[in-house]
Amino acid sequence: MPVCVTNIARPSAETLARYEGAEVATIHEAQGRKGLLASYMRPIYRPACISGTAITASVAPGDNWMLHVAVEQCQPGDILVVATTSPCEDGYFGDLLATSLKARGVRGLIIDAGVRDIATLTEMGFPVWSKAIFAQGTVKNTVGNVNIPVICAGQHINPGDIIVADDDGVVVVRREEADSVADSADQRVDNETAKRERLAAGELGLDIYNMRPRLKEVGLIYVDQKDL
Amino acid sequence: MPVCVTNIARPSAETLARYEGAEVATIHEAQGRKGLLASYMRPIYRPACISGTAITASVAPGDNWMLHVAVEQCQPGDILVVATTSPCEDGYFGDLLATSLKARGVRGLIIDAGVRDIATLTEMGFPVWSKAIFAQGTVKNTVGNVNIPVICAGQHINPGDIIVADDDGVVVVRREEADSVADSADQRVDNETAKRERLAAGELGLDIYNMRPRLKEVGLIYVDQKDL
Amino acid sequence: MPVCVTNIARPSAETLARYEGAEVATIHEAQGRKGLLASYMRPIYRPACISGTAITASVAPGDNWMLHVAVEQCQPGDILVVATTSPCEDGYFGDLLATSLKARGVRGLIIDAGVRDIATLTEMGFPVWSKAIFAQGTVKNTVGNVNIPVICAGQHINPGDIIVADDDGVVVVRREEADSVADSADQRVDNETAKRERLAAGELGLDIYNMRPRLKEVGLIYVDQKDL
Amino acid sequence: MPVCVTNIARPSAETLARYEGAEVATIHEAQGRKGLLASYMRPIYRPACISGTAITASVAPGDNWMLHVAVEQCQPGDILVVATTSPCEDGYFGDLLATSLKARGVRGLIIDAGVRDIATLTEMGFPVWSKAIFAQGTVKNTVGNVNIPVICAGQHINPGDIIVADDDGVVVVRREEADSVADSADQRVDNETAKRERLAAGELGLDIYNMRPRLKEVGLIYVDQKDL
Amino acid sequence: MPVCVTNIARPSAETLARYEGAEVATIHEAQGRKGLLASYMRPIYRPACISGTAITASVAPGDNWMLHVAVEQCQPGDILVVATTSPCEDGYFGDLLATSLKARGVRGLIIDAGVRDIATLTEMGFPVWSKAIFAQGTVKNTVGNVNIPVICAGQHINPGDIIVADDDGVVVVRREEADSVADSADQRVDNETAKRERLAAGELGLDIYNMRPRLKEVGLIYVDQKDL
Amino acid sequence: MPVCVTNIARPSAETLARYEGAEVATIHEAQGRKGLLASYMRPIYRPACISGTAITASVAPGDNWMLHVAVEQCQPGDILVVATTSPCEDGYFGDLLATSLKARGVRGLIIDAGVRDIATLTEMGFPVWSKAIFAQGTVKNTVGNVNIPVICAGQHINPGDIIVADDDGVVVVRREEADSVADSADQRVDNETAKRERLAAGELGLDIYNMRPRLKEVGLIYVDQKDL
Repeated sequence: MPVCVTNIARPSAETLARYEGAEVATIHEAQGRKGLLASYMRPIYRPACISGTAITASVAPGDNWMLHVAVEQCQPGDILVVATTSPCEDGYFGDLLATSLKARGVRGLIIDAGVRDIATLTEMGFPVWSKAIFAQGTVKNTVGNVNIPVICAGQHINPGDIIVADDDGVVVVRREEADSVADSADQRVDNETAKRERLAAGELGLDIYNMRPRLKEVGLIYVDQKDL
Repeated sequence: MPVCVTNIARPSAETLARYEGAEVATIHEAQGRKGLLASYMRPIYRPACISGTAITASVAPGDNWMLHVAVEQCQPGDILVVATTSPCEDGYFGDLLATSLKARGVRGLIIDAGVRDIATLTEMGFPVWSKAIFAQGTVKNTVGNVNIPVICAGQHINPGDIIVADDDGVVVVRREEADSVADSADQRVDNETAKRERLAAGELGLDIYNMRPRLKEVGLIYVDQKDL
Repeated sequence: MPVCVTNIARPSAETLARYEGAEVATIHEAQGRKGLLASYMRPIYRPACISGTAITASVAPGDNWMLHVAVEQCQPGDILVVATTSPCEDGYFGDLLATSLKARGVRGLIIDAGVRDIATLTEMGFPVWSKAIFAQGTVKNTVGNVNIPVICAGQHINPGDIIVADDDGVVVVRREEADSVADSADQRVDNETAKRERLAAGELGLDIYNMRPRLKEVGLIYVDQKDL
Repeated sequence: MPVCVTNIARPSAETLARYEGAEVATIHEAQGRKGLLASYMRPIYRPACISGTAITASVAPGDNWMLHVAVEQCQPGDILVVATTSPCEDGYFGDLLATSLKARGVRGLIIDAGVRDIATLTEMGFPVWSKAIFAQGTVKNTVGNVNIPVICAGQHINPGDIIVADDDGVVVVRREEADSVADSADQRVDNETAKRERLAAGELGLDIYNMRPRLKEVGLIYVDQKDL
Repeated sequence: MPVCVTNIARPSAETLARYEGAEVATIHEAQGRKGLLASYMRPIYRPACISGTAITASVAPGDNWMLHVAVEQCQPGDILVVATTSPCEDGYFGDLLATSLKARGVRGLIIDAGVRDIATLTEMGFPVWSKAIFAQGTVKNTVGNVNIPVICAGQHINPGDIIVADDDGVVVVRREEADSVADSADQRVDNETAKRERLAAGELGLDIYNMRPRLKEVGLIYVDQKDL
Repeated sequence: MPVCVTNIARPSAETLARYEGAEVATIHEAQGRKGLLASYMRPIYRPACISGTAITASVAPGDNWMLHVAVEQCQPGDILVVATTSPCEDGYFGDLLATSLKARGVRGLIIDAGVRDIATLTEMGFPVWSKAIFAQGTVKNTVGNVNIPVICAGQHINPGDIIVADDDGVVVVRREEADSVADSADQRVDNETAKRERLAAGELGLDIYNMRPRLKEVGLIYVDQKDL
């Protein structure tokens, strides 16, 4: 039975605000190296960096009907996440749907399928991460689901989860873990800033991370090329 | 027997003019969702948007000899379309051939293989859609055909057909259907402009396209998350 | 037994200087169409064009420990070349390692795996050619080798070889052949400049390369479309 | 924190028995076209057809340590399901692990990575569905998780779910839905048997499914080729 | 306007008979190295070797409705050829449709998409060449076309053309060229039989094909390894 | 300058004999997890298991001329290894060349490209490991090299190296290391036989390899599902 779930629980505005400008690699590390979507998900233009609340849609191959249902469920600060029930590279999404989403304050689209009108989307500044760029049209015959848990590019995504996307790709954070992950990310950023300065000054990672003893332990040998 | 067909029938200048600035997705829809080349055909730089008359070349894998024969058949407003007789990603085409085509008024290259010198091609403003970017050189040993029908990236292309290419990919329009497709495309553009304004104003596609009754008919249920 | 080879033989500064601004396609042709890395090696931003001396690292899948060992072996003018012992697309390298390499005067990274933090790397102007862009993190558990011969993207690369990389991809030149290849490349550039002018003036490759007799010999027939 | 969950809830013996000899395509249809693993999951030999209870393992790329932990959690009637935390094609599994699993009554392996020793596995009659066949060895350095929910080849799989695998691929059935899906599958099999006989007798699907009126409605036209 | 073309022109029984047992590689060579479908088209079981007349169907992604329309157009000696309007790997075809086709004397299926129930198809001895094996189901919503020219796995195929398929892949022969291609194929087989005997007796291809003078001409040098 | 190296140094008959029946996974481990060709190299039929001395050929894309030169360099116990100078899937090799190689006592073919006539090769019992099966023909225009070092499917292979190939894939062993690798392989086989018996008797790898203390050390926790 096809369903559209309404009034989903969202992270608080305070929590969402902590993800502004967050980087995918940092968040991925901060939550223990999980939640990354497959590397084939690429932004249609660069640089692009967004975060927001997932509204999910599960669609049939070659059929974008449900996207219109999903649009109505979107609020400012949301990101639309689209998964297909069978692999498909068709162009489900173009500038008209982007205009509609933008009018509702949606921050971007994550779609495990194709997108089109990318020149116009780029001009509009509406960011999309997709599996393909393909002008191939879709139909509006088959009903699907909105705001159910989906698997998108290899990751389980629930409506209300937080999505972070940048030039490196896309990562999902569980709503319940959003604050603790943000805490870890903040610590990580601070830590990296300090290390970056030392590295820029010419100090070596071998010394900063104290790697030399362990390298000796595992048997790494230094040999001058002239002695080979 | 290898052949080079000369003096091919081309669309009229008036017809070609109707395709200036045309978008691939629009043309694809306007002609009933057909004619799109495979999604692996990508532009070497963006934005890029061209249309013109197809001059076709069928070449052996790793052999670009026939491109030189094809150049001579090109006129201002043409687009060179290259298909290989076996899959190949070698770099058939670089800045010298581009200089030659540009001198003849050719608008771009569509090649189901590789291309090289793309930094120079980008500086020259000579657009190419290709399957690969690869510096791998080719030889000039095997004769092929010019201006015969070819299959390029999954589409049948005749010499004299119209090619439209932009950031979304490449589409072919049969010469005989060029005016009727242009008519449909014009209508489509007008129609989309009106819809874009309504969507930008916040109206929903669900209402503009009157989708609610049919969604009810196919059984879509709206459920508040709190009631799950 | 894991090894890090130190004090590798490098090309002379004079030799290296001859490769400044060299193009991959030209070098590939100049050395007899060899040495090209696979076409999946793409720059993270464009345009990008570097040359330098290869420092090589062989790393386990999903483990970037050895990169820190490799950093210490790098000098100004070097390029770090990373190969994995099993195919892997993880993000071995990000902005911290780039900061460290930049501090040592390294010109760029060639990695047959994934890279992350590409927005920051782009801002820093630190060029990378990689198989993938992927935020997936790596660990530091398994020791590998530095400055041994590696196979990277299908090519054998020795420490001390010359790497040239641009928008077309990456090519390796053996250190022992570096001067003779540079000679051939210089001749080739001169030769192409002359041809480019003739082609720009409208002369045909068919005539410049005197192809017409041989085309006749192999049986190419010219047929007017009206006579088909 | 790495975890191994013990004493997972399993389907009853009666429920499992209903899946003996079940076909993947039938089960997939019976549960509303969901639960199919990606088509790259192929059996190492054919024919092969198994069903059983999922024991799940989440492993690091190139590291098969956790498989040994998972073995201990297996009982007769189980199927080991292995997912990697990053894409990997290494050969995690060979004849020694198969010997161990077979000794515990395990029916087969589903692994979103590589497998090796397939000649011996074939002789042993131990079926495996994998993404790759690759002799590349793995290490035992990184701890993972056993019997947590995993995403394997694009599907969410919980420990205790039912796995059905045959020459067509692999499908997962939620433990809670196992009986109702078995009911639907039984009906489907009965229904197909009747249809198969009519089709074998020469009756057409067009008539059996009463498709002609609807084809007329959507405008399908029959034209004799001589009238084109 | 969707169309089903009836009463297509077929090759004569005499012509078809000449293709019994023909091999794909031989036919491909006999017609000048053209007509081969892409190498991703693989048989579901081996050995398999068929030839027959193409009945073509063009179907929407994920929709197999038109296959039922196509079945009615099939006669003994036909082969069903299915192309999709957008790339798709779903399982359009299973044992019920195979039962129906077999009842009509159809010799096999060529489908640029997925197939399922392959264990049963193998038992039935109904051969299929496909892009994928995938249990993913399809719907019956969208009308398509039967017996129009299609592009299947990169080749243009007309209804009434001859299809030859074996363990190497699939090749298409134009109906109008069927007799002349059969003539060339017969000559080729005779020629190869003679050569096979000489090669089996230890004679070298270098001598049989008189390659030594030309190898000398292009500069091949023989060097004893001891003299390197 | 194209070259064919003659009278290459081969391993002794005694050394070669030690590799009879050797398994790829065992040899790969025995030499420290190196030397494996890419996982896309698959046997055309199974089971297949060979070992022998590499004769190498480097060929142009789509051109099999050099294979005839290579045949003459082959002796009983050799295996022909073919690499292309640019990626290519054409069918370089069929039953005529196999007949010729078989007449010379060659044990099989390793080719980083396509092969054809596989039904006949299977009947002949001539094993081939290839990247593709494709009937696409090749020409004989471009000279290459025989018995020079090549890179085949990602591995460096010298003429005279030992090749081992089975259902798992292909591995290369340096000629100089052949005896020491055989020693390690023998030890490994003995070791595995003992372990196989213990595992078959139901003993766990956790105990045989004494993994429990280290798992505790890295923090693995066992939790009963009822306590979650």
